[in-house]
Amino acid sequence: MVSLAGGMPYVTALPLDVVGELVADLVAKRGPVALQYGSGQGDPDLREQICEVMRMEGIEAGADDVVVTVGSQQALDLITRIFIDPGDVVLAEGPSYVGALGTFGAYQAKVVHVAMDDQGLIPESLAQTIYALQTAGNRIKFLYTIPTFQNPAGVTLNEVRRRQVLEICQRAGVLVVEDNPYGLLGFDGEPLRALRADDPDGVVYLGSFSKTLAPGFRVGWALAPHAVRDKLVLAMESAVLSHSTFTQLAVGQYLATQPWREQIKTFRELYRERRDALLNSLEVFMPAGCSWTRPSGGFFVWMTLPEGLDSKALLPRAVAERVAFVPGTGFYSDGGGAQHMRLSYCYPQPDRIREGVRRLAGVIEQELQLRDTFGTGAARWHAGIDTPGPDLA
Amino acid sequence: MVSLAGGMPYVTALPLDVVGELVADLVAKRGPVALQYGSGQGDPDLREQICEVMRMEGIEAGADDVVVTVGSQQALDLITRIFIDPGDVVLAEGPSYVGALGTFGAYQAKVVHVAMDDQGLIPESLAQTIYALQTAGNRIKFLYTIPTFQNPAGVTLNEVRRRQVLEICQRAGVLVVEDNPYGLLGFDGEPLRALRADDPDGVVYLGSFSKTLAPGFRVGWALAPHAVRDKLVLAMESAVLSHSTFTQLAVGQYLATQPWREQIKTFRELYRERRDALLNSLEVFMPAGCSWTRPSGGFFVWMTLPEGLDSKALLPRAVAERVAFVPGTGFYSDGGGAQHMRLSYCYPQPDRIREGVRRLAGVIEQELQLRDTFGTGAARWHAGIDTPGPDLA
Repeated sequence: MVSLAGGMPYVTALPLDVVGELVADLVAKRGPVALQYGSGQGDPDLREQICEVMRMEGIEAGADDVVVTVGSQQALDLITRIFIDPGDVVLAEGPSYVGALGTFGAYQAKVVHVAMDDQGLIPESLAQTIYALQTAGNRIKFLYTIPTFQNPAGVTLNEVRRRQVLEICQRAGVLVVEDNPYGLLGFDGEPLRALRADDPDGVVYLGSFSKTLAPGFRVGWALAPHAVRDKLVLAMESAVLSHSTFTQLAVGQYLATQPWREQIKTFRELYRERRDALLNSLEVFMPAGCSWTRPSGGFFVWMTLPEGLDSKALLPRAVAERVAFVPGTGFYSDGGGAQHMRLSYCYPQPDRIREGVRRLAGVIEQELQLRDTFGTGAARWHAGIDTPGPDLA
Repeated sequence: MVSLAGGMPYVTALPLDVVGELVADLVAKRGPVALQYGSGQGDPDLREQICEVMRMEGIEAGADDVVVTVGSQQALDLITRIFIDPGDVVLAEGPSYVGALGTFGAYQAKVVHVAMDDQGLIPESLAQTIYALQTAGNRIKFLYTIPTFQNPAGVTLNEVRRRQVLEICQRAGVLVVEDNPYGLLGFDGEPLRALRADDPDGVVYLGSFSKTLAPGFRVGWALAPHAVRDKLVLAMESAVLSHSTFTQLAVGQYLATQPWREQIKTFRELYRERRDALLNSLEVFMPAGCSWTRPSGGFFVWMTLPEGLDSKALLPRAVAERVAFVPGTGFYSDGGGAQHMRLSYCYPQPDRIREGVRRLAGVIEQELQLRDTFGTGAARWHAGIDTPGPDLA
């Protein structure tokens, strides 16, 4: 099986011997601290280091406004817990991260998608959507956005639009939740300037070490304006008391003693090679009528199938041919996405990616033949079989 | 400062060199797994091992019904999230664990305390409270109880009452949430039989490695009936995706390779010595009119002050005399507890405990003299100064 479904980072590229020594050293030298309870807000030294990481994206912030969380997923959960009452509206790109949609749903938020194109969120659509919702009396609590190397679309909000999105949200009094797990994994040039860099009061920024170091430590964070930060710390204490001191100090030790910028560069080059393998083989193998995004960073390509094809209906046949992807519908809260799928290039080796795309193209070709023979209803004959659960990232 | 306030386990008693080697070995041999995302329910091997640990308290359960959580605090949070709608009632011992009361409050549960004595929860009071509440149309969602070496009271529900409490709850259709972080830290004989051991369908059991190994890994768990377990896994994924694979495997490795039962015995002996130091020095130093519980395990003694004294009012003076405790009011959601305080013996060395009690006794003596000179209002003159935050355990 070639999985183009998962969002698992390729942690094997880490210097495992170094990480092993580092955690042993941590226990030997700081065991009684590392194995003890910690503060709800997170280790103060790690919070300083997080500010240093964020400086690469133009963010100037103090450690006092950072809350360390159990992955950025927990930051998302706590933010939602703080802001959402049942029926409140959350705006999100269409498509958007499945884990965020799940959390918004758990708190009974109403998710309204805002259109995107290959330059990210469309400011005009955002403005119109906000206007229509507010005019109709809806309470919009925040815009949830992954502006850089979006999951699942693989697109990036351009610089002009960044300013426009911030302006629109400021004017409408809508908080922005900027989820940025992939920001440092760009394939061209310097990291993009975060939304948060230009609006400290209107943006809650979520970051993570899951993609730049390892998800197994579950260390993420939120950077939030004071009043939100205070509520986040209380919510954090209520939810888990405190995050693991051990994993926080392990990440801190790694940042303090290892060439982490170089390691990120290694990851970038590795993922760029895989992105190239995916894009090239899509070009070579996919039948006419398929189209896809061309990410300049991150983990994902978003593919659009020819008219009449349904990605969920296609999945069982793909799995029978030993290739997996995530159907597009999981990334919409409104039933959209049937004609789309997410393809991940983060985990498999390049030659496996090519093989996976070759298989997938074969399945799509077959489906197209069915469509041309029996009409567009054919694809739906295959639906109804359980798809694999949404993957973790 | 002698702190009799904190609930921090004495992790320095762990073989730190062994733990260091173990985590290094984990990265070297299983790095790509340990550093990766894991399942929402938790590592399957660890869940098997957790069942082995629970067997010491008479629990027969399958790994499939265990959900690994970020400390048992998270289990508590997720259980509350699943069951509580605003205004629902949670029954809890009076006094009860401050972190649980905070979580119940965060979900707008109405906490109703049930009276305890030195044999734990009083069954008659429980039955009467349930009857009165249900008759008045309240929805009681669960009884939250720490039956063994209770926090903060240090008392243990006796065997006869265990059966009665289960029967009363079964009859009334009230779920029992049994929080048992200290169960293996008894000073006399074999571990007590858990409530869950005799009612697999009516009890959600919460466990933790924070006191038997180390809180810094934040590994706890819930054992729940199938239907609840399914909801817990979904809630877990929504909240944090999955717990740290690294810390889960570290705990698993520790259980698999180390004499963990012996280590618990070491902890037990250490805490017994400290309990003795506390009880003996209370006997020696405390003025007449003070009384306290005599725990046979766990971390805490609950002290009752002479009539007219308020523990919160006393705290600033105690801190000035370099001794700290937690005032009783934090352990009640209804304003009760003013005449009580929690004293912890888990962290300070025995001679420090004695010194702390000597200082505290001096403060109480002074306060008694004030009371006798100026009347019971005197104690309240000192109130209004911030007390230290509720500690972590």
